[in-house]
Amino acid sequence: MKALLLIAHGSRRKESNDEVVVIADRLKSICSGQYDIIHSGFLELAEMLIPDGIKKCVDDGAKTIIVLPYFLNSGRHVTEDIPNIVNDTIPNYPDVEIKIAQHLGASPLMMDLLVASANETISK
Amino acid sequence: MKALLLIAHGSRRKESNDEVVVIADRLKSICSGQYDIIHSGFLELAEMLIPDGIKKCVDDGAKTIIVLPYFLNSGRHVTEDIPNIVNDTIPNYPDVEIKIAQHLGASPLMMDLLVASANETISK
Repeated sequence: MKALLLIAHGSRRKESNDEVVVIADRLKSICSGQYDIIHSGFLELAEMLIPDGIKKCVDDGAKTIIVLPYFLNSGRHVTEDIPNIVNDTIPNYPDVEIKIAQHLGASPLMMDLLVASANETISK
Repeated sequence: MKALLLIAHGSRRKESNDEVVVIADRLKSICSGQYDIIHSGFLELAEMLIPDGIKKCVDDGAKTIIVLPYFLNSGRHVTEDIPNIVNDTIPNYPDVEIKIAQHLGASPLMMDLLVASANETISK
């Protein structure tokens, strides 16, 4: 069983956190064939936090968990905070493989997304 | 002449700001046929700020400027701060059309990017 755990920063603004949950729901609808379990969580300021998100994936039966940081830049949150929290959690689940994906700005698809967003504005 | 102005939040961490400049440079290399002018700028904490970025586009000859927010969520920065700054700048350039693109989390391509980032991690 493979799990995808989408991790955003978390905001005091509920609408921002709700957007992350909506994105995780959309992911469920398009890639349930690839990932049996999809949850979202937050680094801080909102529930669920990363350790709870990992626990939820394990409780649901995950044997592999991809933690996917919903961050654009490789700032301290991406390079230190998320890895530290995940690494602290790994010993609790010795039978589960837990990996962290790259931040989104590192994806080659980001260029396509940026151009598409700009072009859509031009055409309006 | 069409310009694309990529606007990130801006960080005290120079490496994060440099990543935005690198992304703007990559955009130049892949869509110079669509956009004659491509610059990057920041909402705060780093140079250039949005009004300076718009001025630079105009000085380079832009008649249309797409301000592209390099933000994932529709928080206050996207819904209020960037529009307010852009709207304050528009009267200075009556002959230039200035539009703001949607934040990146609103793009339908975001789903593809998320799945690709997760899958790349699985395959490693």
